Amino acid sequence: ATHKLLLLPGDGIGTEVMAEVKRLIDWLNAQGIAHFETEDGLVGGASYDADKVAITDATMAKAHASDAVIFGAVGGSKWSAVPYEARPEAGLLRLRKDLGLFANLRPAVCYPALADSSSLKREVVEGLDIMIVRELTGGVYFGEPKTITDLGNGQKRAVDTQVYDSYEIDRIARVAFDLARKRGNKVTSMEKHNVMKSGVLWKEVVTEVHAKDYKDVQLEHQLADSGGMNLVKWPKQFDVIVTDNLFGDILSDIAAMLTGSLGMLPSASLGAVDAKTGKRKSMYEPVHGSAPDIAGKGLANPVAMLASFGMALRYSLDMGELADKLDAAIAAVLAKGLRTADIKSEGATVISTSQMGEAVLKE
Amino acid sequence: ATHKLLLLPGDGIGTEVMAEVKRLIDWLNAQGIAHFETEDGLVGGASYDADKVAITDATMAKAHASDAVIFGAVGGSKWSAVPYEARPEAGLLRLRKDLGLFANLRPAVCYPALADSSSLKREVVEGLDIMIVRELTGGVYFGEPKTITDLGNGQKRAVDTQVYDSYEIDRIARVAFDLARKRGNKVTSMEKHNVMKSGVLWKEVVTEVHAKDYKDVQLEHQLADSGGMNLVKWPKQFDVIVTDNLFGDILSDIAAMLTGSLGMLPSASLGAVDAKTGKRKSMYEPVHGSAPDIAGKGLANPVAMLASFGMALRYSLDMGELADKLDAAIAAVLAKGLRTADIKSEGATVISTSQMGEAVLKE
Ligand SMILES: CC(C)[C@H](C(=O)O)[C@@H](O)C(=O)O
Ligand SMILES: CC(C)[C@H](C(=O)O)[C@@H](O)C(=O)O
Repeated sequence: ATHKLLLLPGDGIGTEVMAEVKRLIDWLNAQGIAHFETEDGLVGGASYDADKVAITDATMAKAHASDAVIFGAVGGSKWSAVPYEARPEAGLLRLRKDLGLFANLRPAVCYPALADSSSLKREVVEGLDIMIVRELTGGVYFGEPKTITDLGNGQKRAVDTQVYDSYEIDRIARVAFDLARKRGNKVTSMEKHNVMKSGVLWKEVVTEVHAKDYKDVQLEHQLADSGGMNLVKWPKQFDVIVTDNLFGDILSDIAAMLTGSLGMLPSASLGAVDAKTGKRKSMYEPVHGSAPDIAGKGLANPVAMLASFGMALRYSLDMGELADKLDAAIAAVLAKGLRTADIKSEGATVISTSQMGEAVLKE
Repeated sequence: ATHKLLLLPGDGIGTEVMAEVKRLIDWLNAQGIAHFETEDGLVGGASYDADKVAITDATMAKAHASDAVIFGAVGGSKWSAVPYEARPEAGLLRLRKDLGLFANLRPAVCYPALADSSSLKREVVEGLDIMIVRELTGGVYFGEPKTITDLGNGQKRAVDTQVYDSYEIDRIARVAFDLARKRGNKVTSMEKHNVMKSGVLWKEVVTEVHAKDYKDVQLEHQLADSGGMNLVKWPKQFDVIVTDNLFGDILSDIAAMLTGSLGMLPSASLGAVDAKTGKRKSMYEPVHGSAPDIAGKGLANPVAMLASFGMALRYSLDMGELADKLDAAIAAVLAKGLRTADIKSEGATVISTSQMGEAVLKE
């Protein structure tokens, strides 16, 4: 089978880490192990520089037509003065919204070899393996009104709107419960029902979905603020965490940082399964950002990007075995003591972005 | 001078920790060191049980008439089924809003004696001393509409509204800059201007206030998600952090947990200075919550509550010297190895809530 991939490297280190995915794809094609047809596209600041928008309609059409989108990272202070609608992040947000990618899966795994690069004590993070399921197409990211109004007399008023409908909460809860069944069988739902009406509805719908179809899974509710505290205090109490778009943004970043393995962590954004084709739209991207400060220096860690490609193999392209081999190759490289600068430790050999890509390929 | 205090112990461990403040107040009065007139009031679940509201108008009137409100904690699953408007938290929110307490000061300090009870490595948190300035009367906590609507066909829609006017951002920024001048002279402002219009306005106004009146203070902007990451990675990079109501809720809890000293941390909520009287409304409360699981067992740590009273002495009652003595007494008790259960460590003596209160008083 031929798999159509759209590669969107984006800005900053996005280009460098995507180059390592290309290297891997070329090799898999050359070996006849798989057959990928790839197209490249611009997104974020790179797209703005070329076309004055954060992503073009033509690129969006390619995204719709692909089996999976592989996404690098966007943003950088270079574009801090561009119009709001054309800022780099707008490209990412349009991809998420237009492709209907409502379920963002962000594993926070502590690679044993890297436990010491965490700022947390080894015993707190060693063996950590949690999955954050973040709602990605709703909430305050997309709700209207979203405006800044001039009130006269030098005053402005900014408004953002957090909106959730029952069905949006229902479907993300199901993703979380389904995942939990294949893992530790526990879901923790986080919201602020003590302050927000969306939190009240969130808790209500998650509770209903659980009672109706997932009684075998353990469900627990935490307020997002104490949930954040508990993440820092004893993260191993969690298995799957399900939360809204904005809380998910913050809490998944914190969870990723806990592991000390930020440059290692992939993510998947999935749409609904199409009843006719059995397929779903999908996009894969590293959890880390575009890191403009280290871009172009060969310092970036390509593992998160490679592992994101691995998630694509598993969730969208039906090549779970190949994904297993890729994960094993990454683990083997780490076991040999090879490290990019972000995860360097005593006694390890520090290598560049492309050397890391090559090393994984060789394994 | 006579100082009028309103004591609102609230729910859960609130009552126990407030008892230790009362012990201290009684002693100070008896010794003639100060002259406090205190009144007690109900708030939260305790108020609901008595009066079916989270705080009565009569108690609000006492709050308005006091020189400072000393607040324990509210909430607990016992009240999970009460009407939304009467939930325990509504009492706290009404106090903040009606008293105009827009500036919430939350120090995150790592007590050297407690560095090991942090889940973070000693070198990451030892000596940590940051101040989170959280906007407390605006944003998504109070914005309208705030509704759940039945859409028919089994669907509901929940809406919360994040609103900020320029003047609200302006005044909280000034609080942060003024504090920074007395500390490390650095302010980090956190928002999500890449996604939220309120973040755009927030960044704009903070930048303007800085350029106009605080050029001598170092100002830096971070996105709230990477700010959260940086808090976990290397918190000592921060001095004063200024952020909105919801981000402040989550980030200040995380900062508190980093220190390993959650049961030790006080907070102050301040209103604007009245041009005529030179006074400001104020409320003081521990950062920790009502902890229903340990309530009534003498396990709670009263230090956060006592230190909150200390902040009242300093910020509202013009008794900075007495506050210094209280802080020194707390440090001395810790240095002697006396600990409540939450901060116990090897070789330390574990004591109860009231024993801790007595020990501080004795010092
Ligand atoms: C780049 C930004 C718009 C984005 C977000 O806020 O969702 C990022 O932080 C993320 O978590 O993927
Ligand atoms: C109790 C709750 C309403 C409150 C808040 O969300 O502000 C608490 O978490 C806090 O931080 O003081």
